[in-house]
Amino acid sequence: MDIQALERYLHRHIPISLPLGAEVREASAQRVRLRAPLAPNLNHRQTAFGGSLSALAILAGWAWLHLRLREHGHTGRIVIMRSSMEFLAPAEGDFEATCAAPAPERWERFVRTLDQRGRARLELDVALAVGGRPVATFRGHYVALTGPGEAA
Amino acid sequence: MDIQALERYLHRHIPISLPLGAEVREASAQRVRLRAPLAPNLNHRQTAFGGSLSALAILAGWAWLHLRLREHGHTGRIVIMRSSMEFLAPAEGDFEATCAAPAPERWERFVRTLDQRGRARLELDVALAVGGRPVATFRGHYVALTGPGEAA
Repeated sequence: MDIQALERYLHRHIPISLPLGAEVREASAQRVRLRAPLAPNLNHRQTAFGGSLSALAILAGWAWLHLRLREHGHTGRIVIMRSSMEFLAPAEGDFEATCAAPAPERWERFVRTLDQRGRARLELDVALAVGGRPVATFRGHYVALTGPGEAA
Repeated sequence: MDIQALERYLHRHIPISLPLGAEVREASAQRVRLRAPLAPNLNHRQTAFGGSLSALAILAGWAWLHLRLREHGHTGRIVIMRSSMEFLAPAEGDFEATCAAPAPERWERFVRTLDQRGRARLELDVALAVGGRPVATFRGHYVALTGPGEAA
């Protein structure tokens, strides 16, 4: 799935991604990077609303896992179970959420468990930044389940 | 500040609250309850997107604190520092986020610290539900700072 296909998928299936202004900037096995403009996500202090940062982070983690699982032939469900977020600095411009691949051994264990048990859990870290400067960190615990799916 | 005034404030100053469909259903010293419709917040599974639940929860906590601090005469900044969320069940309908007042002794300590030091921190719990059934819990760590403000 390329950048355009992932962006279409998000806009179509998670419609709030449109008013958020979420764009896919990178979509690879190594990472998914999403970007959103400040303007529609402003808060009362003229910086990005924490809820918008959180939503873009959840979306980035979900999108990376969706992409990797499709490459692996899985089309089952992906569910977020838990998340935590640290807000480090005000986001004073367009912001990016980058979900990086976990260590290869964690990914392999996750896929093995999913294949064997039909259910597996993975922690994913997402970094939020404005112009390369960190503004927040996010950790999401996602669960994947095999079964009839959500293929776009 | 009544329900309509709080809703206008949110829609005006945090514009993403409009496409989220956030409405204020209750606004008192005891609690703030916000509601959002499922339709604009759907995910690929036809339930509410986790990022929308998270955004409504952050907004509910912020709104309750904003309201109480205004009653107390404070017009300074409120910033979210950290949050965590547990997703308990799919949200299969319109959802509500209810931020309840903390225990009176915690509130009094918070206000005392804010008055003395110009800065204080408060943990707030927000319950998310669909038709009264819990779908997620949220905890936000907010910091208030005295100073020229954000009065609507």
